[in-house]
Amino acid sequence: MTEPARGGAAPTTGILPAALPPTTRPSTALLTDKYELTMLQAALANGTAHRHCVFEVFTRRLPAGRRYGVLAGTGRVLESLPQFRFEDAELTFLEETGVVDSRTIDFLSGYRFTGSIMGYAEGETFFPGSPVLQVEGTFAEAVLLETLILSILNYDSAIASAASRMTSAALGRPCLEMGARRAHEQAAVAAARAAVVAGFAGTSNLEAGYRYGLTTIGTAAHAFTLLHDDELSAFQAQVAALGAGTTLLVDTYDVHQGVIHAVQAGGTGLGAVRLDSGDLGGLAVEVRHQLDELGATGTKITVTSDLDEYAIASLAAVPVDSYGIGTSLVTGSGAPTCGMVYKLVARADSSGVLQPVAKTSPGKPSQGGRKSAARRLGPDGRAIEEVLVSGDDETVARWSPETDDLRPLLVPLVIDGAVDSRWVGPHGVESAARAHQASRAELPRGARRLSAGDPAIPTVQVTLR
Amino acid sequence: MTEPARGGAAPTTGILPAALPPTTRPSTALLTDKYELTMLQAALANGTAHRHCVFEVFTRRLPAGRRYGVLAGTGRVLESLPQFRFEDAELTFLEETGVVDSRTIDFLSGYRFTGSIMGYAEGETFFPGSPVLQVEGTFAEAVLLETLILSILNYDSAIASAASRMTSAALGRPCLEMGARRAHEQAAVAAARAAVVAGFAGTSNLEAGYRYGLTTIGTAAHAFTLLHDDELSAFQAQVAALGAGTTLLVDTYDVHQGVIHAVQAGGTGLGAVRLDSGDLGGLAVEVRHQLDELGATGTKITVTSDLDEYAIASLAAVPVDSYGIGTSLVTGSGAPTCGMVYKLVARADSSGVLQPVAKTSPGKPSQGGRKSAARRLGPDGRAIEEVLVSGDDETVARWSPETDDLRPLLVPLVIDGAVDSRWVGPHGVESAARAHQASRAELPRGARRLSAGDPAIPTVQVTLR
Repeated sequence: MTEPARGGAAPTTGILPAALPPTTRPSTALLTDKYELTMLQAALANGTAHRHCVFEVFTRRLPAGRRYGVLAGTGRVLESLPQFRFEDAELTFLEETGVVDSRTIDFLSGYRFTGSIMGYAEGETFFPGSPVLQVEGTFAEAVLLETLILSILNYDSAIASAASRMTSAALGRPCLEMGARRAHEQAAVAAARAAVVAGFAGTSNLEAGYRYGLTTIGTAAHAFTLLHDDELSAFQAQVAALGAGTTLLVDTYDVHQGVIHAVQAGGTGLGAVRLDSGDLGGLAVEVRHQLDELGATGTKITVTSDLDEYAIASLAAVPVDSYGIGTSLVTGSGAPTCGMVYKLVARADSSGVLQPVAKTSPGKPSQGGRKSAARRLGPDGRAIEEVLVSGDDETVARWSPETDDLRPLLVPLVIDGAVDSRWVGPHGVESAARAHQASRAELPRGARRLSAGDPAIPTVQVTLR
Repeated sequence: MTEPARGGAAPTTGILPAALPPTTRPSTALLTDKYELTMLQAALANGTAHRHCVFEVFTRRLPAGRRYGVLAGTGRVLESLPQFRFEDAELTFLEETGVVDSRTIDFLSGYRFTGSIMGYAEGETFFPGSPVLQVEGTFAEAVLLETLILSILNYDSAIASAASRMTSAALGRPCLEMGARRAHEQAAVAAARAAVVAGFAGTSNLEAGYRYGLTTIGTAAHAFTLLHDDELSAFQAQVAALGAGTTLLVDTYDVHQGVIHAVQAGGTGLGAVRLDSGDLGGLAVEVRHQLDELGATGTKITVTSDLDEYAIASLAAVPVDSYGIGTSLVTGSGAPTCGMVYKLVARADSSGVLQPVAKTSPGKPSQGGRKSAARRLGPDGRAIEEVLVSGDDETVARWSPETDDLRPLLVPLVIDGAVDSRWVGPHGVESAARAHQASRAELPRGARRLSAGDPAIPTVQVTLR
């Protein structure tokens, strides 16, 4: 068998059919459960579609044993809003498959969200019942957004909640996101973003770098070493191409021989070596010793291989310099979704007066009425309670704390359909990362414990008179 | 507060900024770990980029206790290939952020996959070591696809593997996918597709209906009942708009009162009632009895609410007619990713001869060399072994079973860059669903047990002489 002449740069035999369907599309409108549209049809028919409504997003409980949750995805919700449009492709599909009637199709063709959205700042910690998002508008406008909003917040918050435990456990050492291959390809981009919200220093995911300006990292896999006739020539090729500051993966064959080859190829100024298998703790100690003996005292050690927050914590006393984290991050480290729900809490009655509503059958209770929220701080500035404020709707809507010990949590995100651009794009990620750092620092010290326990602070209800 | 005049159909106050970034883009090329590109740069520099290579996708083990895995996502991999292109936006990003050098940028600008891909048919069951995908081409061409291929196969197969246990447990009753809100919004579309591959009857996800022609389902949520002044008027509105064949959600207030209202609104010809909370088994028995007493003997009962394969199995003797499944489906029922890896197993040496390669350090061993695969069947037609065939590369590449007791598993998917269109789009999903049904039926009876255990059949290695 001879080395084939064809290379990617000048393909001669590649004939890919042009008729394949697109894997993604600009409109986000069909990322929606069918029942949102059938409810709309029925509500348009009897006029209730235009009743003013307040929906709230909250979670009934944290994943078992978790001390706090981290809200992420708010910026993505806002980014997806302008594309929540029913264009020809969507309308034709809905018509041809009989999902809804022609009156509803007409309505959808002009659909724009013109309501308002309040919510916790992205990156904020949350607790059971925290109203992390509040959507206000007509039933028609607001109900259609349920599925998309929950998809985004449930996934992104699950990842950020896990990521925050990892950056906590890493005690300041950089955590790097490398989980793209263990998540849906688009979810992976959101996971990288959510990880950075919760303190990760970078990601291997190029699309996340492109979309959100995140720092991208990565050098080589085992395949690169195996591609070459021997390890030393692979390392020499990598250093020649990427410079001596690169990270060499030293565990393809024998780790200690790999370290010798690495310093041979990169010199004592080699950037780093990476360990991706075996007993990482024991190996790291040996490799540190070996690097120092070879004079590569500034060469760092990065470890990867099925790390989670517990593994990271177990490496605290070991001389490693950074953590590459994949599977457990992008799957939420045992809690791959957040359980957030989108509930109608108030709606106008037939005379236009907003009334609190709630499901009352046993099993999944929720409290009716619009809530406001604040975090109560103790004298030392640490959080002691999540305060949910309810009562007369207009009073709650206008409520703000009168005392310094209450930090208000709801901020405006969309006003009459206009998205506040501070929360979107790369800037939104930076703001969220800052918000997370501040919010986590404010929690009681016990909040950072990895062991299972109750939420770090209790949620209390306050009713305004 | 008065009922606002604005409706979605004629927005007057909505000003959404046009400059928000797109939430998805047509190119799939940056859904890739950075190190694929830096390896490419180094391999282009020393010429090894053009070495002919074989990469294999396999999983080292099934999730703990699972009896078999289900391959899904192959069609999506093929659909994403033509869009794996580096256009101006991607190239500018890579250049400006310094990800790779100008030689690599030049190569990427002309990148098309011109190699070949073999694999298990989508929907096929798999076992530890099964080479579910085999990518052959130059190192440059094939290494770039690693991240995207793994993202797709790991997520989709995790979902299909869970879904298959659910459709098994449902014993022929329809399973309906309703998990969009508990997964990343694009992952949700893939999850719906994977669920249907593994026997689900439909999905609530409209985008999945649009892209893959899947049957969509859904009628109303609690919010619709709460929107109305009382339950009966909500039900009447729904029946007026959607017909008496609709499904009424009866657990917003009191279930038994809800059933009375449902039959009052829809008559004895009402399509179905849905239970979404409480003790589903006990409630279903009571509701069946109540419906029959009211004369609605043909009205079906559908249950939803945190169902997984175990809950479904526990309802086998209960009079329910279909299952709506969300969270546990889209999170893989405890196994949210598959652990599939993409390993270089053979590459040309400097004289162009293909040589087997493998990582040899302890921890994550894998076997070098191209594999072929077949399932060995016993006299009753049931599977007894997963046979992996290795040996001289050309012999293995051309191998086909000589005896009837071996069913070959590898089929061509891409030949010299041309995608076999049988595996993509809606038709690909249908083919995959058929393949899954046949493959599962062929497994030993014990494979369907939900309890933890070993893989249903052992994987054995055969070396050709």
